[in-house]
Amino acid sequence: MPVTDIATRVYNHGWRLDPIVRSLLDTDFYKLLMLQMIRHLHPEVQATFSLINRTKSVRLAEVIDEAELRAQLDHARTLRFSKKELIWLAGNSFYGKQRMFAPDFIAWLAEFQLPEYDLHKVDGQFELHFVGPWTHTTMWEIPALAIVNELRSRAALKGKGRFELDVLYARAKAKMWDKVERLRQLPDLVISDFGTRRRHGFLWQRWCVEALKEGLGNRFIGSSNVLLAMDNDLEAIGTNAHELPMVLAALSDTDEQVATAPYRVLEEWQAHYDGNLRIALPDAFGTTAFLQGAPDWVADWTGFRPDSMPPIEGGEQIIAWWQARGRDPRTKLLIFSDGMDVDSIEATYRHFHGRVRMSFGWGTNLTNDFRGCDPAGGHDLEPISLVAKVTSANGRPAVKLSDNPAKATGDPAEIARYLRIFGEAGRVAQDVAV
Amino acid sequence: MPVTDIATRVYNHGWRLDPIVRSLLDTDFYKLLMLQMIRHLHPEVQATFSLINRTKSVRLAEVIDEAELRAQLDHARTLRFSKKELIWLAGNSFYGKQRMFAPDFIAWLAEFQLPEYDLHKVDGQFELHFVGPWTHTTMWEIPALAIVNELRSRAALKGKGRFELDVLYARAKAKMWDKVERLRQLPDLVISDFGTRRRHGFLWQRWCVEALKEGLGNRFIGSSNVLLAMDNDLEAIGTNAHELPMVLAALSDTDEQVATAPYRVLEEWQAHYDGNLRIALPDAFGTTAFLQGAPDWVADWTGFRPDSMPPIEGGEQIIAWWQARGRDPRTKLLIFSDGMDVDSIEATYRHFHGRVRMSFGWGTNLTNDFRGCDPAGGHDLEPISLVAKVTSANGRPAVKLSDNPAKATGDPAEIARYLRIFGEAGRVAQDVAV
Repeated sequence: MPVTDIATRVYNHGWRLDPIVRSLLDTDFYKLLMLQMIRHLHPEVQATFSLINRTKSVRLAEVIDEAELRAQLDHARTLRFSKKELIWLAGNSFYGKQRMFAPDFIAWLAEFQLPEYDLHKVDGQFELHFVGPWTHTTMWEIPALAIVNELRSRAALKGKGRFELDVLYARAKAKMWDKVERLRQLPDLVISDFGTRRRHGFLWQRWCVEALKEGLGNRFIGSSNVLLAMDNDLEAIGTNAHELPMVLAALSDTDEQVATAPYRVLEEWQAHYDGNLRIALPDAFGTTAFLQGAPDWVADWTGFRPDSMPPIEGGEQIIAWWQARGRDPRTKLLIFSDGMDVDSIEATYRHFHGRVRMSFGWGTNLTNDFRGCDPAGGHDLEPISLVAKVTSANGRPAVKLSDNPAKATGDPAEIARYLRIFGEAGRVAQDVAV
Repeated sequence: MPVTDIATRVYNHGWRLDPIVRSLLDTDFYKLLMLQMIRHLHPEVQATFSLINRTKSVRLAEVIDEAELRAQLDHARTLRFSKKELIWLAGNSFYGKQRMFAPDFIAWLAEFQLPEYDLHKVDGQFELHFVGPWTHTTMWEIPALAIVNELRSRAALKGKGRFELDVLYARAKAKMWDKVERLRQLPDLVISDFGTRRRHGFLWQRWCVEALKEGLGNRFIGSSNVLLAMDNDLEAIGTNAHELPMVLAALSDTDEQVATAPYRVLEEWQAHYDGNLRIALPDAFGTTAFLQGAPDWVADWTGFRPDSMPPIEGGEQIIAWWQARGRDPRTKLLIFSDGMDVDSIEATYRHFHGRVRMSFGWGTNLTNDFRGCDPAGGHDLEPISLVAKVTSANGRPAVKLSDNPAKATGDPAEIARYLRIFGEAGRVAQDVAV
């Protein structure tokens, strides 16, 4: 006789809202590292973050109900760091270091709340902006992306029967585990979850993280998701993002200041963090320009995270640059994190194995690969290229060039000015899938 | 916060036994059809059924705990047909016919109990015999097989972690659904579940039946499992089995009576059942011999179920036989049920499409195909060829020759005698996988 637990059933059917983001720790670790520094050095900067859907063919505002989106964003604004979370941030070691977060920063976090948002629909898309102090708007990036992506998943799943869902998740799990078994063949693999922002959903990301932990053992070094890291006793992984050079360049008064902004970021960073946190992100305004203009001390940093050049080409360029400066690449670290999946991880691993230390940040193709899994054959669960980028700082337009023109963001006139400053060497257009 | 329903958890951890067979309807429909006739015509016959493991390499008694096996068999003996089940058997129509089961048979079923069993271990295998009236021992065939097969599955699953099990069933579901999608390509397919006896487990069979219902719509015509048919409003499917000619041949006093036993079975059967239930099983002592010796009226039956010759070869032989007797095969039905899987279903369907009506009974490869699904890479979940066959009737040895010598059962001297009576025409040895 089937036993129905009536209380549970009634509770499950009475939810007003099934919140997507339930903790302020459900964000990427690098946001907290950057936030501590931003609060220290740039507490007065105003920065606007904006949602940008690069996959124009998906008309998000026709897929996602605006009221549902507002309800989720509103719910995220009710969240506060819990005592348990703050104690863990203060007491845990990160990257082998105790007290990564200063007591005054922890105290400040206790009061933290996500700021207001500005949402309206334009031509089938959402205009979603976060306007206010950089120290607050920066924290919207990950929850906003996770919310929009999961609402899109939910819309695609709506109306599917219990059995169809069962098959869909069975296929996704089988697909994921096949990837794990392929990655197992790489004995020196170092890999982490970078999939929070574009995940299918929170529970699915959690399952994927459990799968990596179960299947890869200590080759899986952790998750960028702070909440999952805390709950699963994993390392929280991450360093810094494009918003740092983008804001510092935007705040510059002269072209010369723009040109040196990427290195000022590194000076600021190394005043705060050391060791494996000294990972430079070279591609905000083009990797080739960054390397050409870099002071010699940048070669003393632990490594780079090439994020928009094809991984093998980007890695080779950086290795040559280290060698030209007399550094041994075998002591250096490259972190590959741009749209990686098993094929490119295998190829990159095999290409560089023994020549440089490597680590892989596996994002969207880890936590949102439902391609071919829908029994109804639909494509609505396939990931899209959605980002939340800083678009202005103190009222001045912010720009990202990237190594891939398809990933550039910002006002066209400003992009043209930045291209004059940094040049176009090494920039090659590639399709952006995720 | 995770909510644990404490009452449910305590209940789940307090089970003395997780019964494999929970209803006397959890058996194949043909057992009930045969039973009604056996009780009518042969109520005094004593028949012994015995478990036969053709996969000698699997030493069942070293895999399955004898005490657990006894506990499951003992539990099955506590079962009685419930009022609801008897009302359904009496009130439901089967094969389009009302009152398939006579009131006195239903009344007799109300008192039915599985008889005693005789179990001991010999050389790593179980000797399991059911001795007593044919009317009772026949009903052990399916539950005994289901119990042994599921205990073997449980032994293989013991010690696996929650995550490993999750991946295992995800893979099995994905594999099963890929099969459904292939079968969907066959527009005139007629298929049913014949997988009770060698299923991985009851819940898994139920899932597979749901999958066929969901994926194939009315191309899925029903299940041989009476309980699943009742619970899912499906047709119960089945006709008759080898035990009928085996017992009638065993009871014969002369070689001439042995030779005609297969046709006496058909005479008895057509006195009880008509229409689509008139399906002859030709291979008990060789299909070629059966067709050669068959009276002309056998060609008026609805069809055949070739069960040990390769499906295309067996079907061609029967079609030629119909044609030689002036019958139009396009009005006739062939039911293929011998170790079928998607490849052989597709090939057989394409070969005969338009030339004869076809139906497929999909058994072990439907309900017990976990090949390649175990994340640990083991083979303990792969199906074995386990049968429960009648071995004697009124103390005389019972024999099955089959078209495939690998599927023959019985005393070697008796097999030799039967081969002299029926000849060896058309018999070809093939591997028996399931």
